Amino acid sequence: MLSTLKQQVCDANRALETSGLVKLTWGNVSGIDRTSGLWCIKPSGIPYADLTPDHLVVLDLDGNITDHGSQLRPSSDTKTHLHLYQNFPTIGGITHTHSPYATAFAQAGRELPCLGTTHADHFFGTVPLARPLTPEEIEADYELHTGVSIVERFRELNLNPLETPAILLSHHAPFTWGKTPAAGLDNSTALEVCAQMAIHTLALNPSATTIPAHILNKHHSRKHGPDAYYGQKDCAK
Amino acid sequence: MLSTLKQQVCDANRALETSGLVKLTWGNVSGIDRTSGLWCIKPSGIPYADLTPDHLVVLDLDGNITDHGSQLRPSSDTKTHLHLYQNFPTIGGITHTHSPYATAFAQAGRELPCLGTTHADHFFGTVPLARPLTPEEIEADYELHTGVSIVERFRELNLNPLETPAILLSHHAPFTWGKTPAAGLDNSTALEVCAQMAIHTLALNPSATTIPAHILNKHHSRKHGPDAYYGQKDCAK
Amino acid sequence: MLSTLKQQVCDANRALETSGLVKLTWGNVSGIDRTSGLWCIKPSGIPYADLTPDHLVVLDLDGNITDHGSQLRPSSDTKTHLHLYQNFPTIGGITHTHSPYATAFAQAGRELPCLGTTHADHFFGTVPLARPLTPEEIEADYELHTGVSIVERFRELNLNPLETPAILLSHHAPFTWGKTPAAGLDNSTALEVCAQMAIHTLALNPSATTIPAHILNKHHSRKHGPDAYYGQKDCAK
Amino acid sequence: MLSTLKQQVCDANRALETSGLVKLTWGNVSGIDRTSGLWCIKPSGIPYADLTPDHLVVLDLDGNITDHGSQLRPSSDTKTHLHLYQNFPTIGGITHTHSPYATAFAQAGRELPCLGTTHADHFFGTVPLARPLTPEEIEADYELHTGVSIVERFRELNLNPLETPAILLSHHAPFTWGKTPAAGLDNSTALEVCAQMAIHTLALNPSATTIPAHILNKHHSRKHGPDAYYGQKDCAK
Repeated sequence: MLSTLKQQVCDANRALETSGLVKLTWGNVSGIDRTSGLWCIKPSGIPYADLTPDHLVVLDLDGNITDHGSQLRPSSDTKTHLHLYQNFPTIGGITHTHSPYATAFAQAGRELPCLGTTHADHFFGTVPLARPLTPEEIEADYELHTGVSIVERFRELNLNPLETPAILLSHHAPFTWGKTPAAGLDNSTALEVCAQMAIHTLALNPSATTIPAHILNKHHSRKHGPDAYYGQKDCAK
Repeated sequence: MLSTLKQQVCDANRALETSGLVKLTWGNVSGIDRTSGLWCIKPSGIPYADLTPDHLVVLDLDGNITDHGSQLRPSSDTKTHLHLYQNFPTIGGITHTHSPYATAFAQAGRELPCLGTTHADHFFGTVPLARPLTPEEIEADYELHTGVSIVERFRELNLNPLETPAILLSHHAPFTWGKTPAAGLDNSTALEVCAQMAIHTLALNPSATTIPAHILNKHHSRKHGPDAYYGQKDCAK
Repeated sequence: MLSTLKQQVCDANRALETSGLVKLTWGNVSGIDRTSGLWCIKPSGIPYADLTPDHLVVLDLDGNITDHGSQLRPSSDTKTHLHLYQNFPTIGGITHTHSPYATAFAQAGRELPCLGTTHADHFFGTVPLARPLTPEEIEADYELHTGVSIVERFRELNLNPLETPAILLSHHAPFTWGKTPAAGLDNSTALEVCAQMAIHTLALNPSATTIPAHILNKHHSRKHGPDAYYGQKDCAK
Repeated sequence: MLSTLKQQVCDANRALETSGLVKLTWGNVSGIDRTSGLWCIKPSGIPYADLTPDHLVVLDLDGNITDHGSQLRPSSDTKTHLHLYQNFPTIGGITHTHSPYATAFAQAGRELPCLGTTHADHFFGTVPLARPLTPEEIEADYELHTGVSIVERFRELNLNPLETPAILLSHHAPFTWGKTPAAGLDNSTALEVCAQMAIHTLALNPSATTIPAHILNKHHSRKHGPDAYYGQKDCAK
């Protein structure tokens, strides 16, 4: 089970680079096995092309490193991932990137509005923006409080993490997630293209309106609802 | 005949991904054999790189599935394709993408004006925008009414589908078509680049004028008219 | 001599596609052997990847086809190339593309100002814009008058074609040229990147100033002047 | 030692092209061995794909060529590199590109503000802009005075070159550097993406604020400070 997970997480990390979503080592993917409560994440600063499943750092849901064979430090964002796994029990994989268009919304301090069906197929409405952290939070534990601010924002807005599997962090960049590591990565791809489309849309029409609720509901339910007819029946998306 | 068509449609679907027009599984190509009235389309949610001709779903012009050997669901957009084949009898292939620049025009609720000869070589004037669907239409049959709104707009404007082989759907994305599946795909490529050029043009000159009628007519007729001299004589474009 | 030229022109046409400057068949390269007065050009509408030197159409400086072994029509832009070879006797190769950023300036009806040294290294000041053609010119001979409008604009501005090896055509796209087919293609690459940089520059600072004359002169002369010290001594650029 | 350096500098020059940062021959990388005071740089105008370590020109810190086996002229920017090695004794490699987004800031005459953590991870605050050179400086020695203007700006702002390893040159383009040739190249990659993000951010929010000081300090120190925990302990970044 764990070796399958490690392979999936390794594959998704390597796909980060070939997808064009990240440059240098600006991103990481993790994945969790909910049965054992064990999860694994990319080590910090390792080039994607060099990554093998054995490089991954395995942790439990208390944040203890349980398998550290390769003696590599986990991603510097590990505590953010941990907090999301602890508080969003339905998610199975998390992806963090600094993809340029999504990061531009984060840097501009703007939520990503749902302007069309591309967005509606992946995110059920606006992708929210988490508040900036306070100096005290950064001093005490920056990465933990990054996770806290994400969960806080989802609770304020009463959002379901699997319906809106993404957030923008002020002055920082996006996090996405999904049922599996691969699904979380797909949501990073979707978020980046939706952000690109939104920037061009707003340039063409600064008062472009968000998609009407009946289209949003239709697109979301045809892909994710109980009577979904997008994709094949046995494809967990 | 059908096996040739299936190969062409499979090739065009696979080219969607390598062309950069689509990410994930956001697009599909279909093609029709007008002699038999049979047509085929990509199954829903299947990665392009895995697609073979045997995966394609074959239908008749009443929308009945006639060959379902691989037991895969057809694209969720199948009824839109069907309605276009029923109402645009000269077209032989249809492509749907969410290519970012063309989608930005659709999301902005703007038609794509003909600003230059690149556009004129492929689309005889403005690429129109279909109206948003009503909640009732979406509830009754979303994909059918998407097709209805396209045909309705072409009839309102008295457009010839082979002269203007593209439309933008409000809050959604483009559809293109052509005499063959490959020609429909080429028109998706052309539409995306024309939309990119138009966005940059309007940034440089918000009151940029459309191409004068005499240049539009010249470019269109040199490529598509009875005395066309673009390309080689035996090249059906 | 001609077989060398044909190989160079074939190579440059094939590089058009891999360079990203053109999509579909939206561009062409020609080259001339000034000793014999023979020149060759891409046939119309042939995919770049399929092109071999034998496909090229050879013409003389009166526009007569002298070698038509492959029986392919020359590029529809042939008369434009011919007029430039007739009137710009120092040029040895011509490239036409619809590269998106340069085309945006053409569609916007704006010259490309010299905003920095990247531009100055290739184009000695503003890249000019040719006037739109009249309906009469288009009716009489569109491609010939395209060439006429280019030469007219260079004479009005008293420009040296090798110092400013590019023009933008209103509502159309750019032409570039150089001492050789490869140099003309390099100037298409340079023009596209300079146009991209200019669009971003003008977005950041709509009143960005052109490069001061002393920097323009310095950059141009260090690369192209009699005491040029850019590149290696035996490199004809 | 020198052969290792030459291999590193050759590799970094070749990576310039595959990274997408440069077109044609618009960029160069150099590297220095501080023990011997010898450094090497790309020859001028040589295509990256053809470059081997033997092509590099080796110089000392007085600017004398000490190894000129291949008889190639060094980069036309050699005196700029030399002045930086003379005045920034902690740097080990320098990269010059005309990457489009960073160049747009240079052409617009704007510094690159620190709008987010991607920037903060690489550059400790604003990336400065050097003043334009005077006609007299250009006449006397253009490339030397380019270096002079960079060092002058860093001294005016009291910046540490390894904390802010980049500068924008008015009407020109960026220079970056780092402890090693590879690190200098990585900073060119980072600068280009940060400039792209900044352009999109400013389009979305023209009054976007720079990152708060406590986040800037946190991100910089977690990657570069004495208690850095980004990356692995033995990775010199």
